[in-house]
Amino acid sequence: MILLNENYLKLPGSYLFSTIAKKVAAYQQEHPNEDIIRLGIGDVSRPLVPAVVEALHKASDEMGRAETFRGYGPEQGYAFLREAILKHDYLDRNIALEADEIFVSDGAKSDVANFQELFDVSCKVALQDPVYPVYLDTNVMAGRTGNFENGRFGGIVYLPCTEENGFIPDLPRERVDLVYLCSPNNPTGAAMTRSELKKWVDWAAQHNSVILYDSAYEAFITQPDVPHSIYEIPGAQKVAVEFRSFSKTAGFTGTRCAYTVVPKALQVYDRAGKPHALNALWLRRQTTKFNGVPYIVQRAAQAVFTPMGQAQIRSVIEVYQKNAQVILQALQAAGLQAFGGVNAPYIWLKTPNGIDSWTFFDRLLSKARVVGTPGVGFGACGEGYFRLTAFNTPELTQAAASRIAHLTF
Amino acid sequence: MILLNENYLKLPGSYLFSTIAKKVAAYQQEHPNEDIIRLGIGDVSRPLVPAVVEALHKASDEMGRAETFRGYGPEQGYAFLREAILKHDYLDRNIALEADEIFVSDGAKSDVANFQELFDVSCKVALQDPVYPVYLDTNVMAGRTGNFENGRFGGIVYLPCTEENGFIPDLPRERVDLVYLCSPNNPTGAAMTRSELKKWVDWAAQHNSVILYDSAYEAFITQPDVPHSIYEIPGAQKVAVEFRSFSKTAGFTGTRCAYTVVPKALQVYDRAGKPHALNALWLRRQTTKFNGVPYIVQRAAQAVFTPMGQAQIRSVIEVYQKNAQVILQALQAAGLQAFGGVNAPYIWLKTPNGIDSWTFFDRLLSKARVVGTPGVGFGACGEGYFRLTAFNTPELTQAAASRIAHLTF
Repeated sequence: MILLNENYLKLPGSYLFSTIAKKVAAYQQEHPNEDIIRLGIGDVSRPLVPAVVEALHKASDEMGRAETFRGYGPEQGYAFLREAILKHDYLDRNIALEADEIFVSDGAKSDVANFQELFDVSCKVALQDPVYPVYLDTNVMAGRTGNFENGRFGGIVYLPCTEENGFIPDLPRERVDLVYLCSPNNPTGAAMTRSELKKWVDWAAQHNSVILYDSAYEAFITQPDVPHSIYEIPGAQKVAVEFRSFSKTAGFTGTRCAYTVVPKALQVYDRAGKPHALNALWLRRQTTKFNGVPYIVQRAAQAVFTPMGQAQIRSVIEVYQKNAQVILQALQAAGLQAFGGVNAPYIWLKTPNGIDSWTFFDRLLSKARVVGTPGVGFGACGEGYFRLTAFNTPELTQAAASRIAHLTF
Repeated sequence: MILLNENYLKLPGSYLFSTIAKKVAAYQQEHPNEDIIRLGIGDVSRPLVPAVVEALHKASDEMGRAETFRGYGPEQGYAFLREAILKHDYLDRNIALEADEIFVSDGAKSDVANFQELFDVSCKVALQDPVYPVYLDTNVMAGRTGNFENGRFGGIVYLPCTEENGFIPDLPRERVDLVYLCSPNNPTGAAMTRSELKKWVDWAAQHNSVILYDSAYEAFITQPDVPHSIYEIPGAQKVAVEFRSFSKTAGFTGTRCAYTVVPKALQVYDRAGKPHALNALWLRRQTTKFNGVPYIVQRAAQAVFTPMGQAQIRSVIEVYQKNAQVILQALQAAGLQAFGGVNAPYIWLKTPNGIDSWTFFDRLLSKARVVGTPGVGFGACGEGYFRLTAFNTPELTQAAASRIAHLTF
């Protein structure tokens, strides 16, 4: 009799977005003539920029001719893309890395989900609360947690991110081997400064721990004291893996390309205390379980780094950044306290008068016909908060803002 | 101190293709004027067909316009592609499945690699020998084996595929929970007939075991008694997962699209003996750890199922099938015994006079300037065999055949 991986049974159902969908559908049915605006989505709305579309066409033609056709490529990505990433995102920022420390993949989600495979099942994991659910769920599946009780999993070290600490987690007081840090953060929009991040790098170095640093929203950073890469912090190459993505940077959510940096200086240990390079382990994982990103998509990603591509994606990001400002101003006008939105496409608002996240959801829907995401859906510490995103069109974002600005809750 | 997953340390280095590359480079350096022909590659040589290239262009344009842009799609694949697969590969063959039993992915390699995650670490795994290394390596990484000693991993049930059993594995005599069957087979080119496959389906049903059926080379089947899907066998939906790919069918090795069928009738068990649908577990795995295949690639895959697409890919497959016949005839002319090549793009030849695989490699290289793959690289039972592939161009395949046909070993 074949046994399943029982860790899967510990996962509670994932009802956040289906519950939202049901509530919206019910409201729409009762109010068929009202137009609902969605500021809950984590997906982009602007199309691929012309430089990227042109690269897709060119590469598609190459794939149709025998002399330029490409079959299997390197699992870690073509050199042309790894070199472009290296130059633009690291060397030009005075970060000394090499191309074989960069692994191209089909998504930051896949990479942050799969990366935990490289560590022992006994590793103690710390997560921000609220948190992007993938970090948690994949460690549950791998057996690194106890059961789910009272809204939390046994065995996980939760790092509360609240108004009191500015949504930047404090260092853990107990042993932690592996910590997931997301900055700029989804869902809170908070971004760690150089000095805040340095504390974590120093902590990891002191405890031989590893930081999995999710930097998917790096392109939205505006403030100079927020680092664009964890490797701007001295010593980070010995303790941190960095996840980056073209999804929000260049509208690749439906085109799928990302990359993960695993510095060769980063060592992990066997039970005898012998060090091993994490880079070699990830290379082995990827070459065994992955077959690379489509050639055409890698050419599209390369086009993001051309001067034309950069100019085009910057103007798209500026659209979203302006949306964030529009939302922030509307919330302020409505007398609501809001965070994020400056270095991130996410606005994290505090619900008024201590009402809970779902009640606020219902009120925002009925009073403004605007849909957002209840903060409690991202973890216990998200209760009393609510997420809005800057990814809708400028027109609809402005329309939603106008409705919100005049509300009283 | 962070501990690594020590199972990774059990994996021996993967030197097969690097050793081949080194030997070829050394030979080329000594004989700079000789042209070497590669019949060792498992990659296709023909470009994408026009119907597919056209679909890529059309979808790329859609991605560049706001009104037709697509962001995140369903992790399991768009309905248009799942429906096309369902109709063409299953309903039209009188196999009753539903679209939500089909999961689109970036590769059969990824899926066969990841699928073992759903099972308990204690599961007993059986593998054909010789074998595609991914099945073995991913179970080693997951901790389902002992150490590597004398060329074999402890804990694995090896199923010898030899001339004696026509390269079709015998049923195991001991407990096995999970068996990987690849038919048409890489590397032997052997394909299981309906009656042979029925034995395995019946065995799995009797023991509550699961068959992971890798059918990546299905498009090369020519003989009527070889099923195109394991679901042609009654009862298979209760015991088998089927992996299919566009890689060899439509030249997608660098474009990346595949699909896995997990019937809702297939149940696995928890330790209390309670059944759970494997389909729901794989859905949970994919929605948590994967973000879907690029929209443009799914449109390209859909184009494979149009009448034009089908006609075009058939003519490409026929090129490879003819190559296989050319190679088989040359081997026969040289007095060598060869298998496969009829329902598969792989030819599995028996080395003459009992010489070992690597000696044959050296002789074929020096006598014919043809490169192939030593059978022992696929497992202990591959010793004394050698793999040639039909994926090179007709011109080079014919040239290699002419050289081989006149050889004496």
